[in-house]
Amino acid sequence: MIERIRLESLRDKVMSAESAAEFIQDGMIVGASGFTKAGDSKAVLPALAEKAKREPFKITLITGASLGHDTDGKLAEAGVLSKRMPFQVDRTLRNKINSGEVLFIDQHLSESAELLHQQLRPDVAVIEVAYIDRDGSIVPTTSVGNSVAFASLASKVILEINTAVPESVYGIHDIYQAENYPHRNVIPIVAPWNKIGRKTIALDPAKVVGIVFTNIQDSPADIAEPDEKTSAIAKHILEFFEQEVRIGNLTDRLLPIQAGIGKVANAVLMGFKDSNFYDLTMFSEVLQDSTFDLIDSGTLSFASASSVTVSKACYDRVFGNLQRYRDKFVLRPQNISNTPGLIRRLGVIAINTAIEFDIYGNVNSTHLGGTKIMNGIGGSGDFARNAYLSIFVTQAAAKGNLISHVLPMVSHTDHTEHDVDILVTDVGLADLRGLAPRERAQKIIDHCAHPDYRPELQSYFDRACERGGHTPHLLEEAFSWHLRFQQSGSMKKKEVE
Amino acid sequence: MIERIRLESLRDKVMSAESAAEFIQDGMIVGASGFTKAGDSKAVLPALAEKAKREPFKITLITGASLGHDTDGKLAEAGVLSKRMPFQVDRTLRNKINSGEVLFIDQHLSESAELLHQQLRPDVAVIEVAYIDRDGSIVPTTSVGNSVAFASLASKVILEINTAVPESVYGIHDIYQAENYPHRNVIPIVAPWNKIGRKTIALDPAKVVGIVFTNIQDSPADIAEPDEKTSAIAKHILEFFEQEVRIGNLTDRLLPIQAGIGKVANAVLMGFKDSNFYDLTMFSEVLQDSTFDLIDSGTLSFASASSVTVSKACYDRVFGNLQRYRDKFVLRPQNISNTPGLIRRLGVIAINTAIEFDIYGNVNSTHLGGTKIMNGIGGSGDFARNAYLSIFVTQAAAKGNLISHVLPMVSHTDHTEHDVDILVTDVGLADLRGLAPRERAQKIIDHCAHPDYRPELQSYFDRACERGGHTPHLLEEAFSWHLRFQQSGSMKKKEVE
Repeated sequence: MIERIRLESLRDKVMSAESAAEFIQDGMIVGASGFTKAGDSKAVLPALAEKAKREPFKITLITGASLGHDTDGKLAEAGVLSKRMPFQVDRTLRNKINSGEVLFIDQHLSESAELLHQQLRPDVAVIEVAYIDRDGSIVPTTSVGNSVAFASLASKVILEINTAVPESVYGIHDIYQAENYPHRNVIPIVAPWNKIGRKTIALDPAKVVGIVFTNIQDSPADIAEPDEKTSAIAKHILEFFEQEVRIGNLTDRLLPIQAGIGKVANAVLMGFKDSNFYDLTMFSEVLQDSTFDLIDSGTLSFASASSVTVSKACYDRVFGNLQRYRDKFVLRPQNISNTPGLIRRLGVIAINTAIEFDIYGNVNSTHLGGTKIMNGIGGSGDFARNAYLSIFVTQAAAKGNLISHVLPMVSHTDHTEHDVDILVTDVGLADLRGLAPRERAQKIIDHCAHPDYRPELQSYFDRACERGGHTPHLLEEAFSWHLRFQQSGSMKKKEVE
Repeated sequence: MIERIRLESLRDKVMSAESAAEFIQDGMIVGASGFTKAGDSKAVLPALAEKAKREPFKITLITGASLGHDTDGKLAEAGVLSKRMPFQVDRTLRNKINSGEVLFIDQHLSESAELLHQQLRPDVAVIEVAYIDRDGSIVPTTSVGNSVAFASLASKVILEINTAVPESVYGIHDIYQAENYPHRNVIPIVAPWNKIGRKTIALDPAKVVGIVFTNIQDSPADIAEPDEKTSAIAKHILEFFEQEVRIGNLTDRLLPIQAGIGKVANAVLMGFKDSNFYDLTMFSEVLQDSTFDLIDSGTLSFASASSVTVSKACYDRVFGNLQRYRDKFVLRPQNISNTPGLIRRLGVIAINTAIEFDIYGNVNSTHLGGTKIMNGIGGSGDFARNAYLSIFVTQAAAKGNLISHVLPMVSHTDHTEHDVDILVTDVGLADLRGLAPRERAQKIIDHCAHPDYRPELQSYFDRACERGGHTPHLLEEAFSWHLRFQQSGSMKKKEVE
């Protein structure tokens, strides 16, 4: 175990999580590893929650993305979090954010590192590592996230060595740090499989104040089997890709794929298995089970991301057989995996999930009823804005069709119509490229809306057009569907109205 | 004159604008040069409008950005335009767009070339040039815009040789064409003054169907003198920059500046004249008079953009003395001047104008009352999303303070809160970096809102917070200010209400 501290002078820094947590004081900014439940702190952050039961204190917590093991919930419950960024998926934390108790900065994941440099320099970093190398540099585990920035900017660093991750993980990370302005250079990636950096994260050993050992796997991903609706969405997307190949816009290799987390992404990726597509690649932020299934089936050649978030079985398969997957995927800092310039240069096909979209193709992917946040924008904005093809998916209607996900106007805008090329629901697919707003509206109503809601959407659009405008709307009615749902639990108009 | 056709085999292609216009037929897609009134077609497009008076026909017209000489208005008036993209500023055209007569695709300027390759291949290109080189390649005039894509993709090309532009303009353009997917390489620009391409646009002479001579300067820019409000906005921004220098975030050289068109941008740039800032650079889309004034005063070292749009006096000064300015500015294709990767790599400071913004920092820069378009998003999205600092400016209130530009909710979202760092009105500046939505709201109300509207904004925010949410809103009231203005011509609440 102690051999994982290869720089011997650091071996006297081993301590308990409780002792390490003492370095974190009231009012501090803490940068912690972890991206979509992968590679997060499993000892020190939970110890912080315990510590707060004895003495109340508050911190700003910045991570890569979401944490596993209910850590965000425990910290929120204990009242430790005054501010949190850039992403979360925890129910308890979400409630505290929506009640105003915790301030949350919902941020494009590529931009956190920029903000860290400008404004929010962490006092303490907590980073999960596989081991500490002889030169004091560190080997991350199942994600990279913002750990490069944390290690570079924090004045004190706490390391969690997780012995559940094999040391052979060395080499699956491509650690590249962008230069500071005005000396930033090109990021020389022209294909997903390019490796341009070092294998370890540089770290000044003098900054290491504590080392804690753990032996805990990441929280497993919830694998939801495709259902009728997600299968229908996946089918529409695959048919669209086939059509693009037929007309010569794409080849059977497609272009590098980014897929957000969730059922639909998994269903689309699994759909590739029995298709003509081959030699596929991913340039994404998270790799899920489906990625490794496609690697195993020979359909996917290479995947680039910032984290691996998979089921227990897949975790054991991948990290127990790294030799087999070593040349098939790479993990990068999130300001590289998600950086706008690379996404456009590579021509990424981005598939992300919407909560709702409107007839003009504006997308809400974060807020319920315009006010309450679910998770956060994550990397969807990084990818959608810069992708070769920006695809958003959602089911046409939900909760026994009492909620329509195609609306006159979204109650919160995360992605504007300018950044949305293709919309897909279980009902159908609308290719919006080259269309003006009025054309987009008719196509979205015809192809994506649930039949129960189509007549009323058409009525809204027609009446709005009578009043005119590039983007016709009836402002007094634009949110009436949301308000109706708030009042009656259904977006459907009552007969008497 | 004829010497400007240096490839002698093309000299028999000279014809009248009317004859050239005959190559453009009903239903065609036409790609025409021109970016913010600079380097636009001055003969063939107007001839099209005349032609339509004799025989009605419709085209899709794609340009770099807006056209000068009322050409868009003439074409719209004559009923020639069925679809127009990606930007316009013409009153007649705007009215036809808002009435639904002309379909308009309002598009990030960096993305038009991408869409041209994917979907909207032009049948005919009309490109203003200074001359045709011996190899058939062409030298653009005062803008580059999308001309590289048009020349490459159109099957027929009409050239307008404008003898009002000196041939010595050769060398001020940096013509670089991004490779097609999946073979796109890095764009090796790491500073605004880097030149990475050729001096002329490649063109297959066999595609040239007509050459028309003109001798007409670009429509001059309207230079509006700074007034009390724009001066106040400029002062807030300059003070903010000085503050950032004091705390070490920036140096006196700042970072490359992008400034949208208009009074405020001019006022900010002129403010640099009597400041401590030096060796400034621009990485922008349009260069205005103020750019050349700053070059003359020695404050600005280099400016990169896609067009020069200046007053008559400045035009004569610059293009009559190109030797003096030759190493001080460069014109690039708009998919290079506006490309996301370069904007982030260079760390651009982006200053753009809003029509209105809301208490959470979402910005509407295109639509009046949520429906009627003014001009278009232009390059503001390209820059705001990827800038080191994204600044939006507007006056706090207008029309005798009957309209507040700071609102509970914007009626149309072009830039989400994620892409807006700094908001400025004549009242003050709100630095929103590192703030959660509720913090942003209080800062915007306190620092940016007009005092007449501050109490009601505060009341909205307070009442929304009582209901909760990450982004508190009262959906039933969110657009009440816009609706009140529609009904009464004022956003102010009446006493009796």
